[in-house]
Amino acid sequence: MLDLAIRNAQIVTAADRYVADIGIRDGRIVEIAEKVGAAAEEIDATGLWAMPGGIDAHVHLAQPQGGGVVMADDFETGTRSAAAGGNTTVLPFALQQKGQTLREAVQAYHASAEGKCHVDVSFHLIITDPTPQVLGQELPALIKDGYTSFKVFMTYDDLILNDAELLEVFDTAHREQALVMVHAEGHDAIKFMTRKLEEAGKTAPYYHAISHSAVAEREATHRAISHAELTDVPIVIVHVSGREPMEQIQWAKRRGRKVFAETCPQYIALTRDDLKGLNMDFSGAKYVCSPPPRDTDSQDAIWEGLRDGTFDIFSSDHCPFRYEDPAGKDVKGARTSFKWVPNGIPGVAARLPVLFSEGVSKGRISAERFVALTATNPAKLYGLYPKKGTIAIGADADIALWDPKVETTITQAKMHHGCDYTPYEGMAVTGWPVRTILRGKTVAADGEVTGTPADGQYLPRKISGEAFPG
Amino acid sequence: MLDLAIRNAQIVTAADRYVADIGIRDGRIVEIAEKVGAAAEEIDATGLWAMPGGIDAHVHLAQPQGGGVVMADDFETGTRSAAAGGNTTVLPFALQQKGQTLREAVQAYHASAEGKCHVDVSFHLIITDPTPQVLGQELPALIKDGYTSFKVFMTYDDLILNDAELLEVFDTAHREQALVMVHAEGHDAIKFMTRKLEEAGKTAPYYHAISHSAVAEREATHRAISHAELTDVPIVIVHVSGREPMEQIQWAKRRGRKVFAETCPQYIALTRDDLKGLNMDFSGAKYVCSPPPRDTDSQDAIWEGLRDGTFDIFSSDHCPFRYEDPAGKDVKGARTSFKWVPNGIPGVAARLPVLFSEGVSKGRISAERFVALTATNPAKLYGLYPKKGTIAIGADADIALWDPKVETTITQAKMHHGCDYTPYEGMAVTGWPVRTILRGKTVAADGEVTGTPADGQYLPRKISGEAFPG
Amino acid sequence: MLDLAIRNAQIVTAADRYVADIGIRDGRIVEIAEKVGAAAEEIDATGLWAMPGGIDAHVHLAQPQGGGVVMADDFETGTRSAAAGGNTTVLPFALQQKGQTLREAVQAYHASAEGKCHVDVSFHLIITDPTPQVLGQELPALIKDGYTSFKVFMTYDDLILNDAELLEVFDTAHREQALVMVHAEGHDAIKFMTRKLEEAGKTAPYYHAISHSAVAEREATHRAISHAELTDVPIVIVHVSGREPMEQIQWAKRRGRKVFAETCPQYIALTRDDLKGLNMDFSGAKYVCSPPPRDTDSQDAIWEGLRDGTFDIFSSDHCPFRYEDPAGKDVKGARTSFKWVPNGIPGVAARLPVLFSEGVSKGRISAERFVALTATNPAKLYGLYPKKGTIAIGADADIALWDPKVETTITQAKMHHGCDYTPYEGMAVTGWPVRTILRGKTVAADGEVTGTPADGQYLPRKISGEAFPG
Amino acid sequence: MLDLAIRNAQIVTAADRYVADIGIRDGRIVEIAEKVGAAAEEIDATGLWAMPGGIDAHVHLAQPQGGGVVMADDFETGTRSAAAGGNTTVLPFALQQKGQTLREAVQAYHASAEGKCHVDVSFHLIITDPTPQVLGQELPALIKDGYTSFKVFMTYDDLILNDAELLEVFDTAHREQALVMVHAEGHDAIKFMTRKLEEAGKTAPYYHAISHSAVAEREATHRAISHAELTDVPIVIVHVSGREPMEQIQWAKRRGRKVFAETCPQYIALTRDDLKGLNMDFSGAKYVCSPPPRDTDSQDAIWEGLRDGTFDIFSSDHCPFRYEDPAGKDVKGARTSFKWVPNGIPGVAARLPVLFSEGVSKGRISAERFVALTATNPAKLYGLYPKKGTIAIGADADIALWDPKVETTITQAKMHHGCDYTPYEGMAVTGWPVRTILRGKTVAADGEVTGTPADGQYLPRKISGEAFPG
Repeated sequence: MLDLAIRNAQIVTAADRYVADIGIRDGRIVEIAEKVGAAAEEIDATGLWAMPGGIDAHVHLAQPQGGGVVMADDFETGTRSAAAGGNTTVLPFALQQKGQTLREAVQAYHASAEGKCHVDVSFHLIITDPTPQVLGQELPALIKDGYTSFKVFMTYDDLILNDAELLEVFDTAHREQALVMVHAEGHDAIKFMTRKLEEAGKTAPYYHAISHSAVAEREATHRAISHAELTDVPIVIVHVSGREPMEQIQWAKRRGRKVFAETCPQYIALTRDDLKGLNMDFSGAKYVCSPPPRDTDSQDAIWEGLRDGTFDIFSSDHCPFRYEDPAGKDVKGARTSFKWVPNGIPGVAARLPVLFSEGVSKGRISAERFVALTATNPAKLYGLYPKKGTIAIGADADIALWDPKVETTITQAKMHHGCDYTPYEGMAVTGWPVRTILRGKTVAADGEVTGTPADGQYLPRKISGEAFPG
Repeated sequence: MLDLAIRNAQIVTAADRYVADIGIRDGRIVEIAEKVGAAAEEIDATGLWAMPGGIDAHVHLAQPQGGGVVMADDFETGTRSAAAGGNTTVLPFALQQKGQTLREAVQAYHASAEGKCHVDVSFHLIITDPTPQVLGQELPALIKDGYTSFKVFMTYDDLILNDAELLEVFDTAHREQALVMVHAEGHDAIKFMTRKLEEAGKTAPYYHAISHSAVAEREATHRAISHAELTDVPIVIVHVSGREPMEQIQWAKRRGRKVFAETCPQYIALTRDDLKGLNMDFSGAKYVCSPPPRDTDSQDAIWEGLRDGTFDIFSSDHCPFRYEDPAGKDVKGARTSFKWVPNGIPGVAARLPVLFSEGVSKGRISAERFVALTATNPAKLYGLYPKKGTIAIGADADIALWDPKVETTITQAKMHHGCDYTPYEGMAVTGWPVRTILRGKTVAADGEVTGTPADGQYLPRKISGEAFPG
Repeated sequence: MLDLAIRNAQIVTAADRYVADIGIRDGRIVEIAEKVGAAAEEIDATGLWAMPGGIDAHVHLAQPQGGGVVMADDFETGTRSAAAGGNTTVLPFALQQKGQTLREAVQAYHASAEGKCHVDVSFHLIITDPTPQVLGQELPALIKDGYTSFKVFMTYDDLILNDAELLEVFDTAHREQALVMVHAEGHDAIKFMTRKLEEAGKTAPYYHAISHSAVAEREATHRAISHAELTDVPIVIVHVSGREPMEQIQWAKRRGRKVFAETCPQYIALTRDDLKGLNMDFSGAKYVCSPPPRDTDSQDAIWEGLRDGTFDIFSSDHCPFRYEDPAGKDVKGARTSFKWVPNGIPGVAARLPVLFSEGVSKGRISAERFVALTATNPAKLYGLYPKKGTIAIGADADIALWDPKVETTITQAKMHHGCDYTPYEGMAVTGWPVRTILRGKTVAADGEVTGTPADGQYLPRKISGEAFPG
Repeated sequence: MLDLAIRNAQIVTAADRYVADIGIRDGRIVEIAEKVGAAAEEIDATGLWAMPGGIDAHVHLAQPQGGGVVMADDFETGTRSAAAGGNTTVLPFALQQKGQTLREAVQAYHASAEGKCHVDVSFHLIITDPTPQVLGQELPALIKDGYTSFKVFMTYDDLILNDAELLEVFDTAHREQALVMVHAEGHDAIKFMTRKLEEAGKTAPYYHAISHSAVAEREATHRAISHAELTDVPIVIVHVSGREPMEQIQWAKRRGRKVFAETCPQYIALTRDDLKGLNMDFSGAKYVCSPPPRDTDSQDAIWEGLRDGTFDIFSSDHCPFRYEDPAGKDVKGARTSFKWVPNGIPGVAARLPVLFSEGVSKGRISAERFVALTATNPAKLYGLYPKKGTIAIGADADIALWDPKVETTITQAKMHHGCDYTPYEGMAVTGWPVRTILRGKTVAADGEVTGTPADGQYLPRKISGEAFPG
């Protein structure tokens, strides 16, 4: 007797598409067949697509911010939003604060997440203080414990690592087989442009997009690739915004370097013009994130990159701040200069519908490629596969049922997040995840979140099979 | 009750790898599960890999040759060899002879194949006489009947189409949604070089590799791509030999052109030096094929291309001629000049073991990529998917069981072909297809061919979903 | 005692710019000094620039046409126009007609030119019938006699060489150290597009620009480069129209191939939109030439190429046909289809003012680069240097005096050619050649042609020093 | 009456080559003619080439070093060596020491140079302390005074500017139209590699070449180009060592960026293997410079770049340290680790013979290109033209007479420098500068220095005409 039978769905994996029943027991997929046996719970999925639950590999939740700013999502609201958007796993960050040990940081985030997750969760680390102690002892121990990836920043005053630090961190990653994610923007170039813009009285949110130039992103991407070449380590360039950094990544890949790349919905659905708001007013702040959205030429480039393998994964870089809130976008100073506007926008719920509609429904990418980018590849890249990321025997029964034909609109109400807006408000989409199943349990359905904050589990991870095969 | 249960295999698809049982009924896969029910026939596949049976999309069988030469394989021996090498489908060519209608050509090949196929078979057409009648009426009718792809040649006196003809054929393919395969080598450049070499007394088989220069291949590749751009039609560049034509294909892909590409075992396992034989003797004739193998730099380039998606499929270009035979390589004249040596080498049985061993076992490509290149992609590209090319519910039960660890040697005895040699004689390999299952029936096992020439079926094909989506 | 002293000019060479006097005796420059001695004739050139007289290396004069069409310029009017436009040497073509020997062709052109040249003249050959006799005997003899360059065509029914012929001609050029100029457009691609356009009722002159696609030009450029690589011979790609063929040339140059390139005024001052005439009427025929002008993106690319050395020379491709003339553009059939409109436009007089004004006056290229492109490089490339192409001791006193500041307009009256229009009518320019001095004699001044048809001499040429150094 | 007549030389400029007499009065060229009038001093230059005196735009003289090291050349010996090697102008650096004003630095160098120069001299500045005072006031004033170029370092503990400083300096250069020279090597990458090598016990001079990797040079080149793009300023990448940084420069040039480039004799005549000395002994220290010589592939790339315009100038980067001297290469610590070996090698005398012999005599570049790279382009790029850098009326009579046929050997004795070795010892060369004429006075001839330390003058310079035209 099965616990759950999903009948007659079109199953989509990263390689295949076929109609079958799925049989689930004890939270895992145990049978896929023309007709599986009887089950305690039956779902008729005729006309629907069964895809692996989305894995959002780039999510910020409950990260402490300076200056009185509070992130709009904690683990509860953030994972609730994820479930609503067809996701069954998210990978938020455990941020090391200066002076803090990594272990302390990890413990703090576990405390924060405990019992508050609607979907499964695993942490990337963020290294901000790469002392010999951190690199020589803490990090190796944490990697052994399943924290097998971490992120470094090439910008932000409180997060930046300089080149010497980056090289040491990369060298450690090479030695310990950890996967490094790089936020690649040139810090000094951004600060220089910011000062020039401020001096010219250009302080509206729009100028954030000018200050964070494509040149600065490209330069940092090249620099990170060079450091990785020198230390012989695979890296992931995260949230790539457009053509210029893509060309560096493509050049590196052609040279046989293991440079993985991620892009996000804001780079296909928004442009820098969105930051203009209404006549350059403050509403542009709703779209302030880093790197910023670029232009339609970069959107074209990104679609080409999603098709041709330049991009390995598609994540949200969910980093929500409330708009009408002095602890959010409207923090003290934000109306005097874009540089005080908190960087980040929500996206964990919108990620999959945006890519599905703009990509699959509009014929730009295949459904299989959608699955690869949003679930299978993230699982493989970050050591969660084959437990996560596919629909196959033995895998966790993490399944999103999609209605590929439904025409609807993205609205704030559908996001179920802690933020007070979505940057995609009003966007017409074709296709929607009508049910999210986490290890056999329906945690969201028909626009409602049906699970509880106790449903999610923490996932230790293996060494990346993609980055360090064999 | 199942007809066949394959138990405990590691199933490999183009995206996934997991251990499960496979249940087969009426020649199709009806169930994949931790444990499938009882079956009339049971196979314990513990420790083995179950991969989709190989689809060799580029095979020459029983093609009439001029000058008293006879192809070494007819449908019976050729498909027998295919089965021995882990394949369940081959796509040979139905060659239009000048003056012949396409329909006549197709009927002749059906007559030749009828009842003589150990594996399933489908025909590509070869267009040599693109009259208005052929392009305007015959070809559209044949495409409707499931002959949805055809090949054209840019060289060979008796096969060549000139640029005007190529453009008309491409234009027809665009209109009728047929997929064109292109043999891209510059005819006049080859003839020019041949004359110069002969004038210099350079007539040994080795000079075949010089006469068919990489420049001539690159130029024709560029030309074909340009014609395809002008007529807005997808094409497949077949049997790409090395870096120079690859760069043209990569350039076209970056520009968003639908240019698919194929390479073959001879371009990763042989080099032009093999054509030297022993001190430039006639034994080099065993390696004469077109385009010829190049050098180790091109081998490196091809591996990179197999990984990064430059290549979509990996075929054999099986085109066998007996070595010690005046109706084969040793035809009248062949010892006086390389230009009389029949072009082609056998490979339908060696294709999969060569790629598995050099690619998967040596860590150059993943097992999933192996499946994509050798089965799933050919099926999708040539309109056989999802009936063929994967292990999924509803698909034909075409499965090759591989022992991934066994160490063995490629020998003539293992090839089971009609040819009297294999160019890979003595090559050490790790991994071998120990059982080939065609629609649920074991047609080869443990080095023996166990099926009959009546086992194979003819497969009409759909329009290519890759080339003409939506 | 000097024959002529030009005083106080700013002398411009391909490398230098300085103010000095120029002393001339017996038609040659014998002294350049702060102040040269007394002279029979004195020219005060204060405020003017003394540049080497223009060398137009690509000019069609008095070439027989089929179908009742007559070229608008013979040697007298064509060289008159050249002198008016600041030129002192032109290189027209001696066209071999099918069946004619090359020697006969050359003699016919000499007869046609004899006593009818306002400026110095030397012939390139056009090879249309590369028989063994032509390649083995005639051509080597003519090269020895100073006909050291020749042109081949990859299109035009009556001129085209196929790939086999091109390879033989290139091989001969390699052996005999002759320089081959290539008209690179893909013949069959043009014919294919022409037929498609005609079938769609698109017959206005504008569609000439569509039929002669950039793809066809790019493909032929690649093909010519490949043939040249195979035969190891330098070539000149003439009249390059835009970005696509340029990229092939740049690629070849980066690989160390000797591929020289030429562009023309129509590719910087016109676009395909000019072929639209007034509402797609027949006046677009005034701009019909091959390759056709492209778009502003290609214009940008060409300026970059003029700066960075992609282009070695800048010629006119002067090929004039009268517009209101049934023996010209308005030949029988021309109004029914663009394909009957004679291909070619006049430009020998406009070439230098167009480049000077758009290039030097607008700051896109330096004056030195102007001299290199229009005089020094053509002289060096085609074996006329140091007799021609510079202002230096011992060189022929071929000097154009330019007023770099004068603002004027290009008009038909200023062209002094046999054609009844100029495609640059009304174009505002800054800078004009106010005096043309041929071997010390003023042959044009202040808008008037002051020389006689007996002034020009025929120039045998040396082997190209650029193509075959050492 | 002329002061000096040079008779019957083959004059070579950046564009031309012709035989004539040169007449000189008051230190300037006043006449070039078939035969100039009588002169107080007559030189029969029959069979010799008269080229513009070399301008070495990258020379270090009398720069203070830390740690007890003394540069082997002061102005007297350095300019003496320059004269011996065919140069008439050198551009050493005036190095700002931390805390020092630029004006003080300049005055110190003037004091050091006063009365001690065998050839003409002009200073580039080196900015090490870009305070607002320096950038806002001192630098603009100095630029007005003719110090129109300056160098910045991306490495060396005591010289390095960080990215924020580089951007401010570039921005100033943009505003003031000064030309920035960039030493592009990634500091942290070098230090990282150095530490790794030392930890592995790899301390011989050879490992200097490993520690200063091509990747680090490429990365810094890309970074400098990006900063220059952001601030819209032309830059010169100096002493480019090989293919990797060249590709970045070529990419920037293709995008229309004004990125000038310089290479040096050590990158065509040495490889990293020279640093091995004898069995990895300390004699490799004779070749330690930064960036280090690379390999033969990079040499090939550099020759291609010298031909195709990737490189604009060819300088020596003369930076001499005595080998057998504790105040030189053998400083305390140097035998314990390569990192203590002073970076730099002598080359001001060898630069021209090395390039002439390897380039002109071996047919890799033309004599005109030699002149462009070594005299005309440096003069134009650094604001010395037309007073310097060519042989033309009005220019200073700075002329090197070369015997293009003489076969000789580079030896320490011929260098006339203060260093105790030359890295080119024993190198066979064809062609030698047999007389160096500075403003009409012979300052070196037949291997002897004939001038005095009072002969050289200081040259204020104009804004770069190449970098800031119009």
